[in-house]
Amino acid sequence: MNLGDLINNDMKFLKPGFTRKDLLKIDEKYLPELAEEVRAVIIDTVKKNGGHLGSSLGVVELTIALLRKFDPLKDRIIFDVGHQSYPYKILTDRFDRFQTLRLKDGISGFPRRNESPYDHFNTGHSSTSISAALGYAKARDLLHEDRHVIAFIGDASLINGLALEALNYVHETNTKLIIILNDNRHSISNRVGGFSTMLARLSSNNFYKSIKNSIRNKAGIKYSPFFEKFRDTFKFIMKPNNIFDELDINYWGPFDGHNIENSEKILELAKNYYRPVLLHFNTIKGKGLKEAEENPTKYHQVSPMGEKKSRTWSEAASKIAEEFAMKDERIVCFTAAMVTGVKLEKFAKEFPDRFFDVGIAESHMLTMAAGLAAGGMRPWVFIYSTFLQRAMDQLMHDIALQNLPVVLMVDRAGLAGSDGDTHQGLLDISWGRPIPNLEIFAPCDEKTLKEAMTAASKRNAPTLIRYPRGSIPSENFDDDNPSTAKAVPLPASGEALCTPHFQSPLTKGRCLEETERFGREVEVKTALIGYGAAVKIMFEAKKLENMDLYILNRIKPLDFVLLDEILKTHETVCTLEESYMPGGLGEAVGARIAERNFNVKLLRFGVPDVCVKHATQDEQRELYGLTAENILKKLHED
Amino acid sequence: MNLGDLINNDMKFLKPGFTRKDLLKIDEKYLPELAEEVRAVIIDTVKKNGGHLGSSLGVVELTIALLRKFDPLKDRIIFDVGHQSYPYKILTDRFDRFQTLRLKDGISGFPRRNESPYDHFNTGHSSTSISAALGYAKARDLLHEDRHVIAFIGDASLINGLALEALNYVHETNTKLIIILNDNRHSISNRVGGFSTMLARLSSNNFYKSIKNSIRNKAGIKYSPFFEKFRDTFKFIMKPNNIFDELDINYWGPFDGHNIENSEKILELAKNYYRPVLLHFNTIKGKGLKEAEENPTKYHQVSPMGEKKSRTWSEAASKIAEEFAMKDERIVCFTAAMVTGVKLEKFAKEFPDRFFDVGIAESHMLTMAAGLAAGGMRPWVFIYSTFLQRAMDQLMHDIALQNLPVVLMVDRAGLAGSDGDTHQGLLDISWGRPIPNLEIFAPCDEKTLKEAMTAASKRNAPTLIRYPRGSIPSENFDDDNPSTAKAVPLPASGEALCTPHFQSPLTKGRCLEETERFGREVEVKTALIGYGAAVKIMFEAKKLENMDLYILNRIKPLDFVLLDEILKTHETVCTLEESYMPGGLGEAVGARIAERNFNVKLLRFGVPDVCVKHATQDEQRELYGLTAENILKKLHED
Repeated sequence: MNLGDLINNDMKFLKPGFTRKDLLKIDEKYLPELAEEVRAVIIDTVKKNGGHLGSSLGVVELTIALLRKFDPLKDRIIFDVGHQSYPYKILTDRFDRFQTLRLKDGISGFPRRNESPYDHFNTGHSSTSISAALGYAKARDLLHEDRHVIAFIGDASLINGLALEALNYVHETNTKLIIILNDNRHSISNRVGGFSTMLARLSSNNFYKSIKNSIRNKAGIKYSPFFEKFRDTFKFIMKPNNIFDELDINYWGPFDGHNIENSEKILELAKNYYRPVLLHFNTIKGKGLKEAEENPTKYHQVSPMGEKKSRTWSEAASKIAEEFAMKDERIVCFTAAMVTGVKLEKFAKEFPDRFFDVGIAESHMLTMAAGLAAGGMRPWVFIYSTFLQRAMDQLMHDIALQNLPVVLMVDRAGLAGSDGDTHQGLLDISWGRPIPNLEIFAPCDEKTLKEAMTAASKRNAPTLIRYPRGSIPSENFDDDNPSTAKAVPLPASGEALCTPHFQSPLTKGRCLEETERFGREVEVKTALIGYGAAVKIMFEAKKLENMDLYILNRIKPLDFVLLDEILKTHETVCTLEESYMPGGLGEAVGARIAERNFNVKLLRFGVPDVCVKHATQDEQRELYGLTAENILKKLHED
Repeated sequence: MNLGDLINNDMKFLKPGFTRKDLLKIDEKYLPELAEEVRAVIIDTVKKNGGHLGSSLGVVELTIALLRKFDPLKDRIIFDVGHQSYPYKILTDRFDRFQTLRLKDGISGFPRRNESPYDHFNTGHSSTSISAALGYAKARDLLHEDRHVIAFIGDASLINGLALEALNYVHETNTKLIIILNDNRHSISNRVGGFSTMLARLSSNNFYKSIKNSIRNKAGIKYSPFFEKFRDTFKFIMKPNNIFDELDINYWGPFDGHNIENSEKILELAKNYYRPVLLHFNTIKGKGLKEAEENPTKYHQVSPMGEKKSRTWSEAASKIAEEFAMKDERIVCFTAAMVTGVKLEKFAKEFPDRFFDVGIAESHMLTMAAGLAAGGMRPWVFIYSTFLQRAMDQLMHDIALQNLPVVLMVDRAGLAGSDGDTHQGLLDISWGRPIPNLEIFAPCDEKTLKEAMTAASKRNAPTLIRYPRGSIPSENFDDDNPSTAKAVPLPASGEALCTPHFQSPLTKGRCLEETERFGREVEVKTALIGYGAAVKIMFEAKKLENMDLYILNRIKPLDFVLLDEILKTHETVCTLEESYMPGGLGEAVGARIAERNFNVKLLRFGVPDVCVKHATQDEQRELYGLTAENILKKLHED
């Protein structure tokens, strides 16, 4: 049966106007049926809109149990990462809007407090839930409120330092907290580390203890006939001496997360317990969709059906890395649970000893890369721009201050589309520019990407290469008119010493034929300077009106010889960048104009420092004026 | 006996020219005497130069054992944080230079690879050692080298997310690694969390196992007569089922870290072991100096003897926080193991329920603060600027994107002096400016500090207040000439919506009487604009030559009405800031000049993006041209 048809015609429970109150009215024997309907809605919507599939399919029953046992308006349920919150959204009064998932002005793919009173903490990056829940719990205590606080976290998120710091701190808080560990054993890609082995051991442990002893002695709840029944009803293990007990957090589990009835009983017990408790549920990622159950990594996040698949930046970057690694045995590659996203699957197969997937542990990844570089290797770290935010201290303290030859391949830089404000890659330029020893490249096509990677491979110092999400333009950027683009070769970069970047060796940007007329009378009054994804817009603007285009590949250090020539020979200079504007290229150019007293007017195009909402990348560009039309409009405003 | 005398006259082993080779020649029965001499040198030098006392005194014996059992040139000993590396420095050919500790052009207070071939990884921030050691270990494996890799980490550093991520990852690396856990049970201040309870339990465990069973079965080393003797020689416990064993790292311990002979035997065993092993040593922080043993927090870091103690920024800030907390019960304060450094001892005593010391867990601190803010409280987070680097994602993702009313009290911002490049506070401005919803203040004296804190307390949005290390100027900044300074009151800040900061409500900076003459003919051609510690230099420059001074308290958003007036009425504008210049105030002013086509020349004074070496703050200012003399020089160069 077609799922769309199912949704339109055959849904027994999920009908227009469905709210959480309707959920409470459903007889418990029909709940598995409701779960199937929730799954059908998720699959149908994600196929159309794209989104996170596997995690959400895995937690349908747990979400139903949670919503029946807790009051989601009064209690604080905090979903870690939040990509598993689709069933929660559907069942908390957002069924009618669910088909707008991830679309402009539609509902977000992650919990958002301004979207619904049922959402209590915005997420997107992993491993924040326990810290946030501890904050909520202490606020509750201090304000003498009466509510439950629940952190809902997956096994992959648990190994990030943030979550581990929070687990360690639970002991100090002397408060009540429920941690639900959703263990689907697959995470984003395969999970790594000692923790996962421990969880697997706990899950396979068939050591049953008498419910009398375990609950009475450990949980501090009084013995009651309920527990007698409880013992016989389902699997219940309390294993002392695991890592959670060591940290003074009571561990209960593992339980079957697809059994709604039993899950509700467990949650009821936890509700009445007075201490921090961790409930370990086993679930199946992608549950209910055969292909997703069998290939959980592939179905973690899916693109909208029928979306044109052209060669991506990630594919091009990883392919070049493979080529380089063939020639240089010192090259090793890192990813933090993003092997599929950054397209390192082939590298991992070809160079298993030289490939490290550290799990969601960005900070550790950069410091370990620093160690490898200090030890004589050449680490290339593949990371999304937004997740690099979690390793900035390691970039500064461990890599840059030691001037170690680590290359940061910063994927999804710039406007990143429908994942929303938590996933934009708008900070790497502003945060990278003040870091000593670091050079920053921002290629605009495959040719300049390879130039940047070549320059990085020759540097005995750290390099950051940022590239956009999506399709990569081919060899010669200006496909429509290849003859107008002429590449100036990139000289090998010298040693970046501990000197101000103004004094560093300069690298020519790519420039067009027209620009080779320095010294002649100025005919074209306007110059556009830009990098990365903004270059496409520059070409579009040039089609509307003749302007000089200057494509930067290296953002730091800037080529001040070229820049000064541009500033001398134009009346108006526009900078274009997919980056937050404070600290961006535009300010650097502005400072140069003001310091040298050039008589030139600056127009800056970029993203203002706002929270960028979910929409397509092009819709976001439109919203922030990164379009050819807007450039022309602003140019003629004065 | 006077320590100076001891060093000059009575040292038996530590004589001029002492090297590690001399250490190896000393008969082991004299090693405790050598340890006393090392202690005397440390105490003597730190009393003169200031520095980290307690940690270094605690590890003298362990360091001697390490240096006798390992080859510190070939093997890679990585000290976590590195403030415990003084004995190592003294014993690795740096005895002669040790009295230059932390002085300009002297040896660093932390390991520095460019200082000595014995130093293998630069440290300063905590918890990097295990990740770095794993990197070194994998580099060794891939390059087929033969060397030992040792991470030397304290119990306080172990609970930071970075170290915990690394502990989790050890399991995946399939390599040999020695982790030495130096457990002094005091860390920087009292340690916190479930980990510490666990370590205490391990340390107090008197369960002795037969060496045969424990070593043979667990450690995989063949039984030998050596172990028979070993068993009787000293305390040896192998406790399975602790957190390290769970993570697949063999745990051996605890051992007495002040017993050189036994420590050497343990290290020999670990050397010959083939798997990752953690050696748990108990040591006494401040060992050998009675006052330091009794008050380890106070003696963690000490100032040079006789240094003038005037009221500090930290004291002023915490006092104002106490005042505010008396009136507003929603205020809670956070620190990450820096209660003494940020002067929150009194707050902690007065408001025990509203004070959180999370240990060295900056990331968790910010996200937990976000949770408290979402739950209705008003968290104030006290943190050094350099350590905020480790929580930038949490500031962006959890606090700013949710627009939560968390106040960041960023101490030691700007040039921070003799701790060196790892401890400078030069990134908060550049990294803070592109963050949406965040307002940034940088007061220059107690009056503007209170104004900033008042403004922050009224905002329903995040605020960052950065203030320098050292003494705070009193009420009216210009002590010498109080009548020239006139404060313009700070209006209450409005809601910072998700809008570009150019459209945010503006706040007047403080300005001087002279500047109230807008509209009149320009007489003074030069304006200085600055904030924070740079303001002192502006006043000094004005004494040399008449200029208009504009003191900014709020850096973001900028007061563009005031700024435009300044730019209209001056020929030259200088910006002054103790911040890295890329992304700083200077660039913001430059962009404004270029966008509005003001005919004004900009001179920027600040710190170039270099690695700032250890020296006094004033020496660092001199080095980077942040002096009145340099301003005058640059002004008259053109």
